[in-house]
Amino acid sequence: MRISQKLAQAHSSPNPPPATFSFEFFVPKTSQGVQNLYDRMDRMYDLNPIFIDITWNAGGRSSSLTNDMVYTAQSTLGLETCMHLTCTNMKVELIDEALQKAYASGCENILALRGDPPLDGSESTGDFKYAKDLIAYIRKNYGDHFNIGVAAYPEGHPEEDLDDLILEYLKEKCDVGADFIITQMFYDADNFILWCDRLRKIGITIPIIPGIMPISTYAAFMRRAKWSEIAIPQHFLDALEPIKDDDFAVRQKGTELVSEMCQKLIDSGHIKHLHFYTMNLERSTIMVLERLNLIEPAKSHEIVGGAELPWRKSLHPSRSKESIRPIFWQNRKFSYITRTATWDEFPNGRWGDSRSPAFGDIDLCATELLRQSPKKAYDLWGSPKSLQDFSKIIILYLQGDLKSLPWSDGPIGDDSAAIIDNLISLNKKGFFTMNSQPSLNAVESSNKIYGWGPKNGYVYQKQYLEFLCHKDTLAKLLDQIDTFNNLKGDNTSSVISYYAVDKLGSLTTNCEEDEINAVTWGVFPGEEILQPTIVERTSFLAWKDEVYRLFTEWVKIFQSNILEIEKSEADEFVNFITKFSDDFVLCNLVSNNFIDENQTIFKLIDALETPDL
Amino acid sequence: MRISQKLAQAHSSPNPPPATFSFEFFVPKTSQGVQNLYDRMDRMYDLNPIFIDITWNAGGRSSSLTNDMVYTAQSTLGLETCMHLTCTNMKVELIDEALQKAYASGCENILALRGDPPLDGSESTGDFKYAKDLIAYIRKNYGDHFNIGVAAYPEGHPEEDLDDLILEYLKEKCDVGADFIITQMFYDADNFILWCDRLRKIGITIPIIPGIMPISTYAAFMRRAKWSEIAIPQHFLDALEPIKDDDFAVRQKGTELVSEMCQKLIDSGHIKHLHFYTMNLERSTIMVLERLNLIEPAKSHEIVGGAELPWRKSLHPSRSKESIRPIFWQNRKFSYITRTATWDEFPNGRWGDSRSPAFGDIDLCATELLRQSPKKAYDLWGSPKSLQDFSKIIILYLQGDLKSLPWSDGPIGDDSAAIIDNLISLNKKGFFTMNSQPSLNAVESSNKIYGWGPKNGYVYQKQYLEFLCHKDTLAKLLDQIDTFNNLKGDNTSSVISYYAVDKLGSLTTNCEEDEINAVTWGVFPGEEILQPTIVERTSFLAWKDEVYRLFTEWVKIFQSNILEIEKSEADEFVNFITKFSDDFVLCNLVSNNFIDENQTIFKLIDALETPDL
Repeated sequence: MRISQKLAQAHSSPNPPPATFSFEFFVPKTSQGVQNLYDRMDRMYDLNPIFIDITWNAGGRSSSLTNDMVYTAQSTLGLETCMHLTCTNMKVELIDEALQKAYASGCENILALRGDPPLDGSESTGDFKYAKDLIAYIRKNYGDHFNIGVAAYPEGHPEEDLDDLILEYLKEKCDVGADFIITQMFYDADNFILWCDRLRKIGITIPIIPGIMPISTYAAFMRRAKWSEIAIPQHFLDALEPIKDDDFAVRQKGTELVSEMCQKLIDSGHIKHLHFYTMNLERSTIMVLERLNLIEPAKSHEIVGGAELPWRKSLHPSRSKESIRPIFWQNRKFSYITRTATWDEFPNGRWGDSRSPAFGDIDLCATELLRQSPKKAYDLWGSPKSLQDFSKIIILYLQGDLKSLPWSDGPIGDDSAAIIDNLISLNKKGFFTMNSQPSLNAVESSNKIYGWGPKNGYVYQKQYLEFLCHKDTLAKLLDQIDTFNNLKGDNTSSVISYYAVDKLGSLTTNCEEDEINAVTWGVFPGEEILQPTIVERTSFLAWKDEVYRLFTEWVKIFQSNILEIEKSEADEFVNFITKFSDDFVLCNLVSNNFIDENQTIFKLIDALETPDL
Repeated sequence: MRISQKLAQAHSSPNPPPATFSFEFFVPKTSQGVQNLYDRMDRMYDLNPIFIDITWNAGGRSSSLTNDMVYTAQSTLGLETCMHLTCTNMKVELIDEALQKAYASGCENILALRGDPPLDGSESTGDFKYAKDLIAYIRKNYGDHFNIGVAAYPEGHPEEDLDDLILEYLKEKCDVGADFIITQMFYDADNFILWCDRLRKIGITIPIIPGIMPISTYAAFMRRAKWSEIAIPQHFLDALEPIKDDDFAVRQKGTELVSEMCQKLIDSGHIKHLHFYTMNLERSTIMVLERLNLIEPAKSHEIVGGAELPWRKSLHPSRSKESIRPIFWQNRKFSYITRTATWDEFPNGRWGDSRSPAFGDIDLCATELLRQSPKKAYDLWGSPKSLQDFSKIIILYLQGDLKSLPWSDGPIGDDSAAIIDNLISLNKKGFFTMNSQPSLNAVESSNKIYGWGPKNGYVYQKQYLEFLCHKDTLAKLLDQIDTFNNLKGDNTSSVISYYAVDKLGSLTTNCEEDEINAVTWGVFPGEEILQPTIVERTSFLAWKDEVYRLFTEWVKIFQSNILEIEKSEADEFVNFITKFSDDFVLCNLVSNNFIDENQTIFKLIDALETPDL
């Protein structure tokens, strides 16, 4: 959606917030850096920014990384994105390519910039001289598709001494079609407010969005202010100079100072939205937002209620109708989006229609699969050499002491809290849990932990458990389940549905070939029933390939020399994981009785009386 | 589905019935007769026959009526149908046309008959001489699409004296591809069993289905036996002759005799299925079935639980995926099927996809609209001349004392029992109820009254009420509802959704343009959520046209001279109904809160304190 529209919506709601906010990220230099930034952007999504922006990867290097990040932010992370685009030294073909890619990703916002002139002081080359030329070009070729932002300099432009001339340039940019203004950083609120007054006086009416640079360390604060040639108010210096060697104290004080400044801007009536230069960090920005009461302190990760669907909705145009996904990739949205990227459409979000062409083969590279560099993987998960080691890693993850697992991109969710003890107990017994959800019966859609969808609705879940366990144990468990089902129903309406498949693809199931089991759904006023999460065969078999491939990739790390560890340690790990993936079967269970559900799945496994490892 | 397959399924189930059964109907001579027969077939659907068959409308008259009835049985009534087809005196083009139409209707069963020879004793003309020629032709041109039945004569063929020759002819028919045998009527069970033995001995292995003719009156019984040249066992005569003038006693005794005979057939082990020659009547057949314990006595109309969907599923091939319908035509499936007959497909049963091309215009003729002949309509509903009269008719219907209304093809359903008092009270106050359903929260899918869908599931409903009321009263009611909604939610999630539209199409609603509200849905083990009934705008507007058109058609009956009543009576009726349809608005209400529902809609209307008429 266009930023102007999102701002207008946010501020015309019945209880508008005092101000909304957005985050700027720059393109990292390494691919692991990109991976880590995605994780950070993913977390910061929960703060509910109106948009994020991604800087243009200028300076002669390939700009495709900016386009890649815009695609991922829109498609996988569901973040409304604004793409920076500089025109200096750029051929029109390159500009077109960047705009086309942004368009295809569903991006509707461009920050049109001139960009830095050549360092040797020569004139810019390329087809555009000024940002206003770029704006005119975008308007001519893309009509109103893109919302266009422009930069502005409340304390003067480094290259231009005449204040009035600077304002004239800005007015020109507005006149050729800019929709909003994002300013350079500053710390002098009074000067900024006067500057806003001047803008309004010369007829600039579009939203002015101040660029806010939080203070993390004294050195960085001083360096950036100097580099941007902006004034630092005396009370900033007075407060920070005495504590400049204490990073923690600087950040605390800096948060106070920046928050006061922001509050002044809001109180002036000119400003309803704050744009944070995050410098790809999250802490200092979050501290300012908390102090301004624009987010709930410390609860920021729990805001699930209010989401449109239980999983993050993609903003990619071809996926806009997508409303059903298999549960298996619940904790691996990056690989899910990659695998299904070539699907033409998600007609009405119906699963059945889009299953064919089915899941792309796994051609993800190793780092995309493990989502960690080899060293980071080793730091996180070490080298498990026994079932006990393996179990301990998963239990650490369940307890919140490990931030990811090879098969889970992020930390354990709050919605697992209710069953965490059961999960830990299972892992102690050699049932290595991969994914799970408790049953829910008519929980209000506004519920902070489990809720999603429109107000006044109800959401439901069937209990789901996915795990790896030894093939012999599994045979016993499935016998037990068959007996249980025979007591409760008949074959066509099993109370517990199961799929179990080993590395080679040998499948055991009590489900029909085309069975599609809705395991999460919601009922809302004046709506069709939404059923966003399902379990079914084709996708489970694709997921099986991915799971066992994760083990293979993990082994490869240890077989290479990257880790610089003892060969004996590497060998032990490789032998263990190899045997493990041969002997352990991937299994999922759904308890279909969500009404009287009383942790049936856990009870059935307990009844096996498997000893602890 | 093919009859062979349905029989095999029914008898290989874990608890097979002692015998299954089917019904034969013949093509009535008048269009009102056809209409009435549809209603009867519709009721007899609830007895759960394996199939029904429709006789060939032979004898030189157009045979298209047979094809029409096959289409209606398959598409509208959802009855698995077997079409009779006689080949004597038939050109191959006509045979092809009949088979093509049957094919297009989703009919997969043909009873291939020779047909009666010309009455003047001459040789048959046409492209086929014997039934076996027809069978061979069907197999050659349609492969295995059609299941083919053949006739057989357990007591000899009227035209052939040699028993062995008759069996040889039957064997020939089987050898060219017959799938099952339906026999001529008979009453001598012992002879029939011996005959079955002979068939098996000469290598006939396909199912033998005895044709059973229940006894309704003594005269008809004797006449048919004589006409078919079959033996009447002495104990039949001994039992019936003394009571021949007492039709009631004959039917009772006849039921005993025929049931005994059927039991003997079942006990012989040869017979697992009984085919009833209903003579387009239902009572005598039902009495035999009850006595054989093949249906539950007197409860036959209540068997709703066990249905695949809450409305009757169509067996027409292009509608096989249809799984969503608007609630408005709930009591008028004939006009719904007609209106939507040209829809190309029902992709995955999704409503959204098939809404365009939308509902066909009403081009139904008057009798199709009112589904009654003018005289029958007058007998049923008289000539209401005031709101009080109008109210009384609807109350009679609600109490079960009237079998239909202009806008409801059949009697009030058992699922309305819970709210019948509320409905009566509304009609007394000038809210003329058209359609309604109570709210349901997780009722078991096996529930006899409300259940549908697979076992071990749960079904849900939102409270729904549709009625006509005076435009002034309606304005007050909608105000009340708006106030109620404002207390409970906000505009986007109204607790009560409403649509109200007058004859001219002026619409008042609190729903979005494209809103689709699921009002009936079910959750089942290993299945997607099914949401078979919805409320939405486009279909409601089409339904409005139909409702007001019903009044126009009703008026036309009184403006013609058909009824032979006083002009003053006719005028009074016409004036009343004309003014009524000008002043009364069609309105529907959905209470979206199905969890805590406590008859909110009734309470809101009660709160208006409208006096009784």
